[in-house]
Amino acid sequence: MSSVSAVVEDLVAANRILAGLGVLDGFGQVSVRHPDYADRFLLARSLAPELVTREDIMTFDMASAPQDGDTRTPYLERFIHGGIFVRRPDVTCVVHSHAATVVPFAASSVPLKPIYHMSSFLRTGAPVFEIREKFGMTDLLIRNNAHGAALAEKLGDNSTVLMRGHGYCTVGGSIPEAVFRAYYAQVNADLQQRAIALGGHVTYLEDEEARLYDETNRSVIGRPWGLWKAKFA
Amino acid sequence: MSSVSAVVEDLVAANRILAGLGVLDGFGQVSVRHPDYADRFLLARSLAPELVTREDIMTFDMASAPQDGDTRTPYLERFIHGGIFVRRPDVTCVVHSHAATVVPFAASSVPLKPIYHMSSFLRTGAPVFEIREKFGMTDLLIRNNAHGAALAEKLGDNSTVLMRGHGYCTVGGSIPEAVFRAYYAQVNADLQQRAIALGGHVTYLEDEEARLYDETNRSVIGRPWGLWKAKFA
Amino acid sequence: MSSVSAVVEDLVAANRILAGLGVLDGFGQVSVRHPDYADRFLLARSLAPELVTREDIMTFDMASAPQDGDTRTPYLERFIHGGIFVRRPDVTCVVHSHAATVVPFAASSVPLKPIYHMSSFLRTGAPVFEIREKFGMTDLLIRNNAHGAALAEKLGDNSTVLMRGHGYCTVGGSIPEAVFRAYYAQVNADLQQRAIALGGHVTYLEDEEARLYDETNRSVIGRPWGLWKAKFA
Amino acid sequence: MSSVSAVVEDLVAANRILAGLGVLDGFGQVSVRHPDYADRFLLARSLAPELVTREDIMTFDMASAPQDGDTRTPYLERFIHGGIFVRRPDVTCVVHSHAATVVPFAASSVPLKPIYHMSSFLRTGAPVFEIREKFGMTDLLIRNNAHGAALAEKLGDNSTVLMRGHGYCTVGGSIPEAVFRAYYAQVNADLQQRAIALGGHVTYLEDEEARLYDETNRSVIGRPWGLWKAKFA
Repeated sequence: MSSVSAVVEDLVAANRILAGLGVLDGFGQVSVRHPDYADRFLLARSLAPELVTREDIMTFDMASAPQDGDTRTPYLERFIHGGIFVRRPDVTCVVHSHAATVVPFAASSVPLKPIYHMSSFLRTGAPVFEIREKFGMTDLLIRNNAHGAALAEKLGDNSTVLMRGHGYCTVGGSIPEAVFRAYYAQVNADLQQRAIALGGHVTYLEDEEARLYDETNRSVIGRPWGLWKAKFA
Repeated sequence: MSSVSAVVEDLVAANRILAGLGVLDGFGQVSVRHPDYADRFLLARSLAPELVTREDIMTFDMASAPQDGDTRTPYLERFIHGGIFVRRPDVTCVVHSHAATVVPFAASSVPLKPIYHMSSFLRTGAPVFEIREKFGMTDLLIRNNAHGAALAEKLGDNSTVLMRGHGYCTVGGSIPEAVFRAYYAQVNADLQQRAIALGGHVTYLEDEEARLYDETNRSVIGRPWGLWKAKFA
Repeated sequence: MSSVSAVVEDLVAANRILAGLGVLDGFGQVSVRHPDYADRFLLARSLAPELVTREDIMTFDMASAPQDGDTRTPYLERFIHGGIFVRRPDVTCVVHSHAATVVPFAASSVPLKPIYHMSSFLRTGAPVFEIREKFGMTDLLIRNNAHGAALAEKLGDNSTVLMRGHGYCTVGGSIPEAVFRAYYAQVNADLQQRAIALGGHVTYLEDEEARLYDETNRSVIGRPWGLWKAKFA
Repeated sequence: MSSVSAVVEDLVAANRILAGLGVLDGFGQVSVRHPDYADRFLLARSLAPELVTREDIMTFDMASAPQDGDTRTPYLERFIHGGIFVRRPDVTCVVHSHAATVVPFAASSVPLKPIYHMSSFLRTGAPVFEIREKFGMTDLLIRNNAHGAALAEKLGDNSTVLMRGHGYCTVGGSIPEAVFRAYYAQVNADLQQRAIALGGHVTYLEDEEARLYDETNRSVIGRPWGLWKAKFA
């Protein structure tokens, strides 16, 4: 199997896994940088992630324009993906989600912080992108390259960016890493909310603890990925 | 397939989708205006939505009286549907639900407000219908045309009306739109509750943001609808 | 089918329905008064409700003693059922559950109250049985006729009694009614909790509203019961 | 079937049951002391619990070193199991989990306490292991025998130990007992959280009540275990 074919297989799996885990519903997307061309990325045509197959994958350039004369309808928010791939050469995969537990943190002044090792990737923070700051009143979608660049700037060198009134994105150096982060951002939001509701003092991870676990995680991330592929892909 | 036949098919799908999404359980209903006669609407006989088939669909007039000599048992609350169809010529579909996350807002002085773009349809507010105001002590059901008219008056030009001690209704210009709103009203209630529980400042959508997204939503609403039909109908 | 055979069929269905709805897990029971002998009741042998079949049903007298020389292991808490059947001749069916959302109310000074029409049966209150009052330190189970009588006394003429540190019971004039109440007590507890957490003023049902709906409910209770039988039994 | 074969069968069942109940996801483990050699224990190779079969079970000594020249990749956290088996000769089974409702208590100053009889095993407390105290900044994992011994020391004679920023462990005198405790620790955390959120006074179990139920539980624990095996194993 060629490298592209294997990547497309994992991208399709990621779509189904994220739907199966409840991270994506009828909305949201997952993209991957092209394995042969760093200035191209792969993303499904506008379709519910649970229904995506190999045949639905399109190729885009860094301006999020469809390639190869592909005239199928792309996602309105493909500019999220192009914007991040341009600014972050280290990123291989981008997930955009509206998952229920994270949206409240995107609307709240309370920051999302790592409450256990699984969400160590949140250690540098999950900044909130406020689209009003640069663009005033919008429909909240990332609809063009200016929006995408502003979102990517807010993401900075972090793994996660929250989007006020909208959702969030996670990025990773591989498809499993970005999917893992999208899922555990959702879990962490639920756990953090529960911890706050207990009314006592909450201890979050120290940066050094989270940094150390992030390294460890590279050696074990294949385990949940293998389980998720077996269950959902 | 004739227009009526296609509408009945979508109405049956809406029943099963709303049950599959947990918006309806053994109670609640979804109706659609007759495609050929604006003064008629279609609604199942008194039956759990999950079990509804084509054969269960009845026709009603604007007074919510069964037509064509149909003697099957209708829903007690068919007057919800007639009341709204009379007052709102722009409405094609009405959903009435007791969904768990919304009922608390119907009982609380805290208003339901849009926390993300998916619930932009809440931008003009979700007024609370207090049946005691006009009718004193009742069993809380919308049992006659006076009840239905009062509920429709409280709904006004909004997309959603909460019913104290009871549930809520959403309306739409199409079956997918009303179903979408019934589902995302439920999601928004959960998200808003979670945001409030965090204890910080919560930013809701500005009216203009919600208005802009509402327009956008018309072009993408087929995506979740297609997914839901594939999964539940 | 003889009357007993039909009742046993519904009792088996009730076991499976309550498990399917998440009201019962490996623990809890549902019983029914014998249709021919008012001083006998039917209850499964000690078995997880989800696994109960016709062959598992035993007969007990009002002292909760197994009849007909049946030597199979009965539930430790059969005295809940005998105690209530003795004191409440109007009761046909008793459900005992540890369902998650209700247990917190059994441990809290905050009373369970009806937040919507579906839980109108809570209108006269859901008193909390504190086993310590009469029996001091126990394992919290209703293990003998004295415990059963005390629990039934606390239940009084209500439909629901909470048991501190343990769970709750609902009763009904029929199997569907007691099952309906067991399920909607659980839903109401969740809704009431959510309404309290919003932090505003909460409006509960007036006694007269709840009384009126309770009457209505008799004509529609067959609808969820039919759905539940189709799905779970 | 030899004793070892039966124990392995139950250990595989425990893996699948804990996954089915949502106590374990792609992470966490369950181990059992070897039935013939008190200084050996059985634990799967590094694999998602839901996928574990008989062939995946490895044998370890009390230093958590693989036996019989087995070169398959073991769990990084096998030292949790060795550490506890060394210190607690009464323990036959150890479960380690990151289950969602318990992690908040591991991060909070609010202690986990038994709110109903099912969680009587919490009566002596669920101390929180703070790995920083002895080891400073780590990746939070129990990676060596010093970590394992410190965790076991914090567990003491209790049935449950929480791990700050990480998860928890439960132990039992049998596989069903440790599994039961892992599951009901998770349920209790949810119930206790809900009770606290109601804002009233919360009554927890007295030590004597919990001690008495713990004895009772030995006679009924086969019931949920049988159900879980039928559903998930």
